[in-house]
Amino acid sequence: MFSQTCQVRFSHCDPAGIVFFPQYFVMLNGVVEDWFTHALGIDYAQLIGQRLVGLPTVSLQCDFAAPSFMGDSITYQLQVERIGKRSITLNVECIGTDGPRLKLRQVLVTTSLSKHQSMDIPGDVLDALNRWQNETGATS
Amino acid sequence: MFSQTCQVRFSHCDPAGIVFFPQYFVMLNGVVEDWFTHALGIDYAQLIGQRLVGLPTVSLQCDFAAPSFMGDSITYQLQVERIGKRSITLNVECIGTDGPRLKLRQVLVTTSLSKHQSMDIPGDVLDALNRWQNETGATS
Amino acid sequence: MFSQTCQVRFSHCDPAGIVFFPQYFVMLNGVVEDWFTHALGIDYAQLIGQRLVGLPTVSLQCDFAAPSFMGDSITYQLQVERIGKRSITLNVECIGTDGPRLKLRQVLVTTSLSKHQSMDIPGDVLDALNRWQNETGATS
Amino acid sequence: MFSQTCQVRFSHCDPAGIVFFPQYFVMLNGVVEDWFTHALGIDYAQLIGQRLVGLPTVSLQCDFAAPSFMGDSITYQLQVERIGKRSITLNVECIGTDGPRLKLRQVLVTTSLSKHQSMDIPGDVLDALNRWQNETGATS
Repeated sequence: MFSQTCQVRFSHCDPAGIVFFPQYFVMLNGVVEDWFTHALGIDYAQLIGQRLVGLPTVSLQCDFAAPSFMGDSITYQLQVERIGKRSITLNVECIGTDGPRLKLRQVLVTTSLSKHQSMDIPGDVLDALNRWQNETGATS
Repeated sequence: MFSQTCQVRFSHCDPAGIVFFPQYFVMLNGVVEDWFTHALGIDYAQLIGQRLVGLPTVSLQCDFAAPSFMGDSITYQLQVERIGKRSITLNVECIGTDGPRLKLRQVLVTTSLSKHQSMDIPGDVLDALNRWQNETGATS
Repeated sequence: MFSQTCQVRFSHCDPAGIVFFPQYFVMLNGVVEDWFTHALGIDYAQLIGQRLVGLPTVSLQCDFAAPSFMGDSITYQLQVERIGKRSITLNVECIGTDGPRLKLRQVLVTTSLSKHQSMDIPGDVLDALNRWQNETGATS
Repeated sequence: MFSQTCQVRFSHCDPAGIVFFPQYFVMLNGVVEDWFTHALGIDYAQLIGQRLVGLPTVSLQCDFAAPSFMGDSITYQLQVERIGKRSITLNVECIGTDGPRLKLRQVLVTTSLSKHQSMDIPGDVLDALNRWQNETGATS
């Protein structure tokens, strides 16, 4: 499991004073970036920017349990559900100090940003994913 | 069906030159606002700002079919799947000039913004929803 | 003068219920896009995406006169103050139904997105800018 | 001086692969939040959310020296230029590992969020500002 705590910022919140739901996905993307760079050892910015491997989302299911307020600390806990040939399925829970905030399932696919077509997960990324799965004791 | 076309802006796009997926939900919120204000006849800004009725999302399922590029025109087509006592379930398709971009199901709940608790859909909103469903020939 | 009205959305507003100031600049960018595409006849998305000409901001001065609330209609009025060899200086006022909201001066430079260096304004863009200045009676 | 390092995220970047300029101001707001909460000892979320004291920006001048790319670490360095009766003037520099990125001057005013009018800086905030100015050796 990869775990990261985010601060709920003024900029994440709406006129109701709670996180505007798309902002949870903006934060999620930051968590995925850091998971790649720091846990998998695959530099996310380089993967996208230099290697031109995209990681667009093809499927997202999310249930929201409770609102998050400005100033809250919320923790994203990321697990890999499945590693496909061209896709990675993540299960993510986001938890506040007082209980769950949301639970989501996200399917990412690897694409060539020069051709805008799906492509196989690059070998080093696949190795890193499998190694991380083994180390964290999860089953894929 | 409520239909609205959005322009894909520079600000919606990521380093891959395509819409960053949370931005689809930001645009979706604008579509829901205009549906309320112009199709249902319920002023969305007033509902939230003066009447303190919130419409947070409690569930979201979204499948992305193809990327949208800067400069694209994309059309959101919104239908009501179900009107509950305290919730509204929407089915939305977003379509580009060359085919589908995404399909989503969103469940909104009505909440009291003073108490941050769910509340029944206000009478005038419920009437407007039922009237609109009848006029557009949909079944709830 | 190029004039465009924007709707203040839920997503533009902060926990105080007013436009979060960076969102004015996000809207501004949309206005500049439409000014290029519709008034100058230079397709903005193509300029950036295909021709790889960037238009980053190098200087920005902005004074905010009054807050904008969710649901407000605000109108951006854009004028060109100066056309340089590699830069365009804009004067923009944003006006609500009840008076001014903000006044800004923005300097954009043309850059090569393949080299990330400044470059001369492309000939067709310069011609379009000069033609538009003449037609709208402004002096540069 | 209050100093804070931010990670340039995928979500901050535009189709040119560099930070979209309004995103610098979104990050700036996070820096100001943390400066209040951690350096001044005034809980920012509570100030806005419970005490209903707003801190809108009334003036902003910003010069951008060089672009920031996805994956960059950039450091915001914040100093107070002037403490007024109802305003705080900040000087902020944002620096990358290879040199300056931007320099800005921002004037914030204290407002009552219940009346949407300017108000005097609350006593405890003023004390905290003066104390911090003295400790950091700056002159106001």
